[in-house]
Amino acid sequence: MSAAEFDLIARIRARAGVRDDVALGIGDDAALLQPPPGRQLVVATDTLNRGVHFGEGAAAADIGWKSLAVNLSDLAAMGAEPAWCTLSLSLPTQADNAAFVDAFLDGFLDLAAQHRVALVGGDTTRGPLSVCVTVLGLVAPGAALRRDAAQPGDEIWVTGTLGDAAAALALDGIAPYREQAVRRCAGDPATDAARLHERLARPTPRVAAGRSLAGLASAGIDVSDGLLADLGHVCAASQVAARIELALLPVSPALAAAAEGAARWQLQAAGGDDYELCFTAVPERRTAIERALAEAAVPGCRIGRIEAGRGVRAFAPDGTPWRPARTGYEHFAG
Amino acid sequence: MSAAEFDLIARIRARAGVRDDVALGIGDDAALLQPPPGRQLVVATDTLNRGVHFGEGAAAADIGWKSLAVNLSDLAAMGAEPAWCTLSLSLPTQADNAAFVDAFLDGFLDLAAQHRVALVGGDTTRGPLSVCVTVLGLVAPGAALRRDAAQPGDEIWVTGTLGDAAAALALDGIAPYREQAVRRCAGDPATDAARLHERLARPTPRVAAGRSLAGLASAGIDVSDGLLADLGHVCAASQVAARIELALLPVSPALAAAAEGAARWQLQAAGGDDYELCFTAVPERRTAIERALAEAAVPGCRIGRIEAGRGVRAFAPDGTPWRPARTGYEHFAG
Repeated sequence: MSAAEFDLIARIRARAGVRDDVALGIGDDAALLQPPPGRQLVVATDTLNRGVHFGEGAAAADIGWKSLAVNLSDLAAMGAEPAWCTLSLSLPTQADNAAFVDAFLDGFLDLAAQHRVALVGGDTTRGPLSVCVTVLGLVAPGAALRRDAAQPGDEIWVTGTLGDAAAALALDGIAPYREQAVRRCAGDPATDAARLHERLARPTPRVAAGRSLAGLASAGIDVSDGLLADLGHVCAASQVAARIELALLPVSPALAAAAEGAARWQLQAAGGDDYELCFTAVPERRTAIERALAEAAVPGCRIGRIEAGRGVRAFAPDGTPWRPARTGYEHFAG
Repeated sequence: MSAAEFDLIARIRARAGVRDDVALGIGDDAALLQPPPGRQLVVATDTLNRGVHFGEGAAAADIGWKSLAVNLSDLAAMGAEPAWCTLSLSLPTQADNAAFVDAFLDGFLDLAAQHRVALVGGDTTRGPLSVCVTVLGLVAPGAALRRDAAQPGDEIWVTGTLGDAAAALALDGIAPYREQAVRRCAGDPATDAARLHERLARPTPRVAAGRSLAGLASAGIDVSDGLLADLGHVCAASQVAARIELALLPVSPALAAAAEGAARWQLQAAGGDDYELCFTAVPERRTAIERALAEAAVPGCRIGRIEAGRGVRAFAPDGTPWRPARTGYEHFAG
C-alpha cells in the first residue's frame, strides 16, 4: 500500500457511514459485523466496468450511485433489508484519483445513506477503471423472494415503469438500442430526454418495495437485463411459463412521448437497466400486495400470468403473439 | 445476461462447494446464508488485476488460487474461520473464456475445498481481466486479531518464512525487485527458483494459525505489502513503535541460497506477497502461542518487540539501525 493508496482509503474511511452493528469498519484486514440473531444473511456482488456498464464520459458521482444501486437492487429482489457493503475500486494511474474518488463517493454514499448501508471495507488498486461492490443484507428465514418459487396461476407484477433506461441508450445512439425508433419531437424533448437519462444514470433500487413484498410474493427478480430475459430466469428456475400482455406494461410519460407501438414494446420488454422489480403472487394476495406497495410508496401493476409450461410469451393488444428483435442485454455478445 | 454468460455461470455453479448453512447459493439475485448465533461476521474483499497483481502469462489456475488465497489471508489475519465467498470475474471477449474459467476454478476451488469455503455467488462480465473476491468468515466476539491492539512490551512474531515471493519477482526481473542482487548459482538453482516461484504463485493463507491465535495474540496483520510496511500499519493503529532484529527474520533454504546480507533483508523486510501472519503477544503467552502454532502445524518465531513511541525500526546483527531502499509494495507508485 502506497502513501497514495493510504490517502485514498483515508478519504473513503472518513466518509463511510456508521451503524451500531459494525464492530470494526474500514482500516483493518477485514471488517467485523454483528448480525442480529434469527435472520438470514443475503449476499450479492456486481462489478461495473468502464466501456461496458458506463461510458468514457460518465460522471464519477453517477458511477458511484449506480455501482451501489445495482447491488441494492439485487437485495431488493430478494426482499432483503440492506445493512453493509464493501467497495473494491480499480483506478488508472493518474493525478486526479483523489478528485475522482471524492465525486464517486458523493453518489455512492448519498445512496448508501438513504438506505442506512454502512461501507465497511474494500480495497483500492491500480487497473482499468472498475468498481466491484458486495452488499450484505438481512431477511427473515423463509421470507426471501426466490426465482424458483413461481407457480402456475400466479399473477405477474412489475414496479414503476419499464423501458426508460433503454430509451436513453437509444437516444445516445448506443448499440443495440440505437436501432430503436425514438422520437425526439413529442412533448418537451429536452425534459423528456433528461428524465430518461436520469433513469439510466441513477436507477432507483426498489428496496422498500422488496422488503414489503417479502413473505407475500411468490417469486421475484430485478429487471436488469430486460423484462423478458429476467422473467425467463424466473420461469426456468420455477419450471413454469409466463404470458405477458404488452398493453399492460407500465410506461412513463417521457417514454410515451418518445416511442410507441412495437418500438416501445421493444424498449419495455427487452431493454435492460430498469432495476424495477418483477414478481409473482397468487391472485388472492392482490389486495395485500397493493397495500404493501402503497406503504412502500412504489407504483406497481399486473402485466400477465404464470402458466404451466416453459418460456415467456408476449402478446400484442389484438391477441397476436409478439417477439422482440432481441430479448435482453448480452454482456458477452459484443 | 447472454447465453455465453449463462453458460459460464452454469459451469461455476456446477462446481461450487456446498455447506449446510447455505440456504441458497449461485443462481438467484443474491445468496441466502444462515450465520450461526453468537458469532461475529468477518468480511474482506480484494481485487487482482492483470498487469498489476499477476503477469500476462500467469496460469489461470494460479490466478484462481491466489485470488482466493489473498482474501483468506485477510480472514486469517483476523483469526477468523472462513465460511463463504463470492467471485466477480471480468473477462475479455474471447473464444476461450470457458477454458479459462475451468482452469481458474481448478485453482480457486482447490483452495476453497481445503478450507471448506462455499462459493455462493458473484457475476461474470466483460472487461479487462480482473478478479474481485469477497470472503465471509466467523469469529467469537472479542477474539479477532485487530491492528489496533498491540501494546508496548508485546513480542512480535511471524509465521513461516519471509522474502520468498519477492525473490521470485527479483529472479523474474520485475520492478522494483529486479534491483535486488539474487544469486542463481548456489544450491540447486532450478529447485530453489521453483520453490520461490511457488510461494509467489500459490501463497498459503495461514488460516489454521490465525484461528489458533484468536483470543491469544494481541494484534495481527498479514504480510502482503512487506513486513515493515504492514507492521507499520499495526504500529500506527495501535499508536506504538516496533523494533525488529534482522538476524531473527525467518528465511527459507531457497532464499538462503539465493540472497544474503542486506539484499536478503530487503526481500524479507520489504518484499510483498508473503501472506505470512505478523502478530504481537505479551511475553507471558509465549508458551501458549508456541503450542497453538504447533497445533496448527505452522512454524513461527519471534522477531522483535513492541515499544512506546512511533514507527518501525530494524536493526542489523551488529546493533546498527538499517533502513531498506523501499519499505513495501506500492500500488499507485508506478
